[in-house]
Amino acid sequence: MSSEARILNFSAGPAVLPEPVLTQLQAEMLSLPGVGMSILEISHRSAVFERILEQTLTDLKQLLNVPSGYQLIFLQGGASLQFSMVPMNFLLPDTQAAYIDSGSWGRKAMCEAKREGAISVAWSGKSEGYKRMPKQSEMVLPENPAYLHITSNETIEGIELFDDWDLGDTPLICDASSDILSRPLDVSKYSLIYAGAQKNMGPAGVTLAIVKEELLTRGKRGLHTMLDYSTYVENNSLYNTPPVFSIRVVGLVARWMLDNGGLAAMADLNQRKAELIYQALDQSEGFYRGHADKDSRSRMNLTFRLPSEELEAEFVKMASASGMDGLKGHRSVGGIRASIYNAFPLTGVEVLASFMRDFARQKA
Amino acid sequence: MSSEARILNFSAGPAVLPEPVLTQLQAEMLSLPGVGMSILEISHRSAVFERILEQTLTDLKQLLNVPSGYQLIFLQGGASLQFSMVPMNFLLPDTQAAYIDSGSWGRKAMCEAKREGAISVAWSGKSEGYKRMPKQSEMVLPENPAYLHITSNETIEGIELFDDWDLGDTPLICDASSDILSRPLDVSKYSLIYAGAQKNMGPAGVTLAIVKEELLTRGKRGLHTMLDYSTYVENNSLYNTPPVFSIRVVGLVARWMLDNGGLAAMADLNQRKAELIYQALDQSEGFYRGHADKDSRSRMNLTFRLPSEELEAEFVKMASASGMDGLKGHRSVGGIRASIYNAFPLTGVEVLASFMRDFARQKA
Repeated sequence: MSSEARILNFSAGPAVLPEPVLTQLQAEMLSLPGVGMSILEISHRSAVFERILEQTLTDLKQLLNVPSGYQLIFLQGGASLQFSMVPMNFLLPDTQAAYIDSGSWGRKAMCEAKREGAISVAWSGKSEGYKRMPKQSEMVLPENPAYLHITSNETIEGIELFDDWDLGDTPLICDASSDILSRPLDVSKYSLIYAGAQKNMGPAGVTLAIVKEELLTRGKRGLHTMLDYSTYVENNSLYNTPPVFSIRVVGLVARWMLDNGGLAAMADLNQRKAELIYQALDQSEGFYRGHADKDSRSRMNLTFRLPSEELEAEFVKMASASGMDGLKGHRSVGGIRASIYNAFPLTGVEVLASFMRDFARQKA
Repeated sequence: MSSEARILNFSAGPAVLPEPVLTQLQAEMLSLPGVGMSILEISHRSAVFERILEQTLTDLKQLLNVPSGYQLIFLQGGASLQFSMVPMNFLLPDTQAAYIDSGSWGRKAMCEAKREGAISVAWSGKSEGYKRMPKQSEMVLPENPAYLHITSNETIEGIELFDDWDLGDTPLICDASSDILSRPLDVSKYSLIYAGAQKNMGPAGVTLAIVKEELLTRGKRGLHTMLDYSTYVENNSLYNTPPVFSIRVVGLVARWMLDNGGLAAMADLNQRKAELIYQALDQSEGFYRGHADKDSRSRMNLTFRLPSEELEAEFVKMASASGMDGLKGHRSVGGIRASIYNAFPLTGVEVLASFMRDFARQKA
């Protein structure tokens, strides 16, 4: 089908993918060029797939400027399984794991860690209604923390942490599911970064982790094979059958990013896109009320309220009639949420900004 | 590309998929009909995906003739993660889990269970070289077993268990990764059946489990959320983002099976296909030596040796030149392995059988 028939997809994830990636997947669905098999059908032990995996890892390393001493691995189960694997591997006896309670996802990570050992809340945004991310200076760390866990972007509340903190010897572990690859980050500041693919990276069903080798040496021993990060590192993510197709898509998306200027270009574009919406919001004379404090405004998930729930419902309905899908806020917080990841087009953001102005003019 | 350019893919998994399924995936890659988004891009909370999930579950229940009192769920991580989840959930304190040591996969399941508690080997094929599956009467169960775990098909050794055992009150748990949906089975005899999708069901990256509700009531409490079967049952596999695309493919494959006569027809065809190869083997006057005892010969993964490793290498090379890929046996056992799951065409099996006769004639 032609691209004209595609709608504007503001979904928080799974989310819009680059159209050239979809077109290539379509072209090779019955056979990878010269291979005679679909990517869905090839053995993960084949030379063809090994090349795909290797190129994907190489491209991701280049995009993220990963220094030596780090390993990239692919896992399954989404960030939610990582919430468990992190404390299983790294919350050692007689230590406490520090968590930032930054919103819905930070809390979920914290809850799983409690099943595994002692945790300490280094900062909580709860009393403020999860409107902002903290500064590093606000952290209260326990003595000898096993690690500090942060969530760089809270998709539901729409707040984002833009700084790469330097914690010295304390391992910094980051759930970057919803903003990874949206801008450059300093990998060297982190001991572990993990991210479900289904926002900026690819389809649901594969999770990327960037692990510092030094952290692995501190990990617990005797874990279940599939819940031990070392298994993935030692077997180049091929201990068991990986999600072959999903990794292929991640590879194509990574290649698309490199072809379009890498993370610096992605960051520029994402900032421009977010500003268009936030401007429409700030210039609405209070008709739209952003949830996030300005410094913490997410460039990935933009959340705002209207004067009433009725107007919010009408906004979503009229937007949908204009070809804009997925704007309803998460059921836990309500309101409107526009998710505009890397692959969401600037022209689509312009359509929404213009719609916002028109709607406010009519209804204010 | 045309189907002529596709090769004969004997891979053990990921494996060949029905061409009509690939064609449909190709057609809808940029937009599900009338939706304006690719299946890779739609929210798992959308009405569109809910319908896809529901239809997939309905079709699988029909195919497998699932009685009431059972729940179908989708998980991630492959059968390998199930090796851990099964004992985590059901190996209760003061009980022993019984395992059949039937081959490579049965052993792996057993190894993970040992991390969780006490196990008992109910039968082992090790001393016989894993050439056959046991009879139920050969089992030696501990007193008050938590469950008995079996592997219905060992892909590496090429042996298959065709009986549905009746264990009375002892929960029977089956890893059916490599023969699920290849023939009818009596679900009522099992408390839990699990299967990675990448052989008969779909792409790598999604795992189906059929859980008896009564078993869930016996399960441990306080487990990590993503490692607790109850999470998936209570949330209809939507606690977190499921592998949306992989589930779509499973749905299309299930529909293809229903359209082609269901599991009875699949079983007939699979038997005919397997017989063609085993005949060529049995009529080769000892040139080909099957690994499995005749009663346990797998209809999914057919394993055999040639008079020498040199001839095996030549067999694989010449077959490859004739458009047959993936015939090399698993590195742990060597020899030849032809994996001919549901979607592997009868005509392709005929090509291999004919090739086997020619090769034996030339080389014997």
